Amino acid sequence: MIDASVHLPSSLWIGYNVIIEHGVIIGENVRIGHHSVLLSGTIVGDGVMIGCNTVLGCQPFKNARVRHDVSEQGSLVIGNESRIGNGVVIYAGSTLGEGAMIGDLASVRERTHIGHSTVVGRSATVECRTTIGDRCLIQTGAYITADMIIEDDVFIGPEVSTSNDKYMGRKPYELAGPHIKEKASIGNNATLLPGVTIGREAIVGAGSVVTKDVPDNATVVGVPAKLMSRDP
Amino acid sequence: MIDASVHLPSSLWIGYNVIIEHGVIIGENVRIGHHSVLLSGTIVGDGVMIGCNTVLGCQPFKNARVRHDVSEQGSLVIGNESRIGNGVVIYAGSTLGEGAMIGDLASVRERTHIGHSTVVGRSATVECRTTIGDRCLIQTGAYITADMIIEDDVFIGPEVSTSNDKYMGRKPYELAGPHIKEKASIGNNATLLPGVTIGREAIVGAGSVVTKDVPDNATVVGVPAKLMSRDP
Amino acid sequence: MIDASVHLPSSLWIGYNVIIEHGVIIGENVRIGHHSVLLSGTIVGDGVMIGCNTVLGCQPFKNARVRHDVSEQGSLVIGNESRIGNGVVIYAGSTLGEGAMIGDLASVRERTHIGHSTVVGRSATVECRTTIGDRCLIQTGAYITADMIIEDDVFIGPEVSTSNDKYMGRKPYELAGPHIKEKASIGNNATLLPGVTIGREAIVGAGSVVTKDVPDNATVVGVPAKLMSRDP
Repeated sequence: MIDASVHLPSSLWIGYNVIIEHGVIIGENVRIGHHSVLLSGTIVGDGVMIGCNTVLGCQPFKNARVRHDVSEQGSLVIGNESRIGNGVVIYAGSTLGEGAMIGDLASVRERTHIGHSTVVGRSATVECRTTIGDRCLIQTGAYITADMIIEDDVFIGPEVSTSNDKYMGRKPYELAGPHIKEKASIGNNATLLPGVTIGREAIVGAGSVVTKDVPDNATVVGVPAKLMSRDP
Repeated sequence: MIDASVHLPSSLWIGYNVIIEHGVIIGENVRIGHHSVLLSGTIVGDGVMIGCNTVLGCQPFKNARVRHDVSEQGSLVIGNESRIGNGVVIYAGSTLGEGAMIGDLASVRERTHIGHSTVVGRSATVECRTTIGDRCLIQTGAYITADMIIEDDVFIGPEVSTSNDKYMGRKPYELAGPHIKEKASIGNNATLLPGVTIGREAIVGAGSVVTKDVPDNATVVGVPAKLMSRDP
Repeated sequence: MIDASVHLPSSLWIGYNVIIEHGVIIGENVRIGHHSVLLSGTIVGDGVMIGCNTVLGCQPFKNARVRHDVSEQGSLVIGNESRIGNGVVIYAGSTLGEGAMIGDLASVRERTHIGHSTVVGRSATVECRTTIGDRCLIQTGAYITADMIIEDDVFIGPEVSTSNDKYMGRKPYELAGPHIKEKASIGNNATLLPGVTIGREAIVGAGSVVTKDVPDNATVVGVPAKLMSRDP
């Protein structure tokens, strides 16, 4: 079903059974795979490629146990030349920079910003209100919690886990996700506690549990993570 | 394709290309997103909202390496006012309590029970024959193994991992998942070994590996997890 | 949409809204669930069962930050009697042995080989150019990186994480995934560093971080993983 009011450029390649709702805007030289769904308000830049069975522009929802605001979100804006895989879910009210890539079966929530040329790996999850800089690599299966700041050129390894609620739902609390500074690298399956700051060009070893701030240029490893060395 | 024998209430909002098989029952004020599939025997309560590209009521399957029973399962029953995301997979023979929420790309197997107002986060997995109480928060990417008991008001952090087979497939063994008692909290990326009991209101620190039972009200941290403090 | 040139055996059971592109070959007694997509070049053996909303035979894609080759891949070959779940994504240029099983929401990249009777669990990810032997169990949510060798009868627990880039994207580097030898078992949520070898019948404890090679028959646990015992 393609809403009759949507302009389909002649350069568009479109698969079978694609749904395009009212108010969607599609740039030049776009490719949309079979069974993908573009919900109202989705804006697709030039040269974007979208796989099969992907859902773009969802509105948030919740039940009685969830605290966050789920008011109606504005457009999902997908930058030029972005690549979006198969089975992906991306919410309304977010923006993807130019040349960003979202892997298969990944999901990105509302009010996030993904920088240009950044990769969000397959089956990774980015929660709401998080900002990710340019040229970052968020690897497969990583969990990026809400209210995080990830600066430019950060590497986050596969299955890294982050959190933003130190009381684990027991008390009201101003949620605070980790802040990861420019060019820091987080090894696979590391665990970051709420509110920690990872310094510029710092390295967190694979499997480490980071319970406090890591200085710029430092390397930390272990459970809990301890300083290994610090470049001057 | 909507089976001709299924009653569609006039209050139903239904997307494009939805499949509703023979024997499905749909309550009042239900919303079903584009491309979702309701297989035979699915029972949807009043006020339920279902996203796009979701599959409800699958039958189990296996190959030669899998031990569990895959006999034909009965109905999947979805309680009133439940919220089910996009790209979700839920099996036949399970029940969701009133107001439960299942996040995008999560999957829930057969013969499970999810309590009322409980959240199963995005990309989380709940295996077969597991019971989850009321008002629990199972966060994004958590892995809830088969044969677990999770009591009411439990918090399970993102990417927590559980297991039920201490011989890792080497020997025949009565599978035993962890038992998590009322109001316990498990920090993100913690690992629970087969058969451990986590006591009432106990806290397991982020990234900990729990190899033995945790008493009521205790806090444990580390690899292996050790007692930090114990409230009287 | 089913391409007119594709031969559909009379023994085929096919759901609604299935897409079968030009050049797909389908064996006898195959079952394909609703909304699944078989892209050009997919070859499906006899007795294969495929769930709903699954995408088979995708071509690889990338953006400026990704190093691997994304040239056009050849066929995806699915062995006889394989079982493929719902919401699965499998790339062109890979082979699944006879009786393999791929769980719901799992993804398998190009140029991989999955051995006969092997299980890739739900929401697990297998990256490109990796070889997995026969009768392996790769459990739910496990992350199998690129360029890995997994021999026969290996057990990999839920949410295990592996990596293949010791410089975490900072330097050019010949990527090297772990090598897991016959009958080894990796406990849930363990972390394997790039290039480590896990010996024959070795055991890695749950939650361990493996930073160096593990000898045959050894058991290692902890962060970093240390030798517990060694059978003669």
